[in-house]
Amino acid sequence: MKKPDELRRSRCPIASTLDVVGDKWSLLVIRDMLHGKRTYGELLDSPEGIPTNILAERLRRLEGAGIIVSSVYQERPVRYTYTLSEKGTALGDVLLAFVRWGKRHIAGTQTLKESALRAVRGRLPRGSTRARAKG
Amino acid sequence: MKKPDELRRSRCPIASTLDVVGDKWSLLVIRDMLHGKRTYGELLDSPEGIPTNILAERLRRLEGAGIIVSSVYQERPVRYTYTLSEKGTALGDVLLAFVRWGKRHIAGTQTLKESALRAVRGRLPRGSTRARAKG
Repeated sequence: MKKPDELRRSRCPIASTLDVVGDKWSLLVIRDMLHGKRTYGELLDSPEGIPTNILAERLRRLEGAGIIVSSVYQERPVRYTYTLSEKGTALGDVLLAFVRWGKRHIAGTQTLKESALRAVRGRLPRGSTRARAKG
Repeated sequence: MKKPDELRRSRCPIASTLDVVGDKWSLLVIRDMLHGKRTYGELLDSPEGIPTNILAERLRRLEGAGIIVSSVYQERPVRYTYTLSEKGTALGDVLLAFVRWGKRHIAGTQTLKESALRAVRGRLPRGSTRARAKG
């Protein structure tokens, strides 16, 4: 596996972040982990229907990037739980920006568990969004 | 070309946003347009070296999604300028979240033109980031 620096396209923090989570699935896996999912089976059970091979590859990659941490919870057969590191939990801020933009600019979107994401920041982001809309 | 609804994986605003800009390049094109780039040639000239075919495809897709608007500025041969719609400009909020996360969690990142992104929000986001770090 290549090291992060070898995959890096530039020193731009946006490009560098996209090098790690810039695909259609990684941020959804992180969303579900923020919502409390911890096992492979739980993560496989998302409304978007992530393919098994993609989930396995993303979990490996996110662990390699220090965003998630795996630990064995069963020996025979070996089963893992996955939790977010501090670095991974901090991506809740990015996800909230996606939620705000998606809700405002894509018709018909709805979140069932926004409260779980909001808890990451410890405060409701809706107020700041409204304030910006008024300003 | 499929309509946005046909590409949609769920009604989650995060998934719906990723359906539109969830790849390694779209948000970099939008970053460069927020920085004032308007022509194909200018957008091609990024530190990440976007391939020509990917740039052309992304511009078509982003225009189809109502994120950018093209207009003819030269007739023979036909040349276009690209500008962000209000919907596209609002993605500056997402990019700022990437900047904050990348600067904090990926070593060696640096932005040359953060001020251009900040201008989108009309206020400095660094204060809120610091406040959260303290809180």
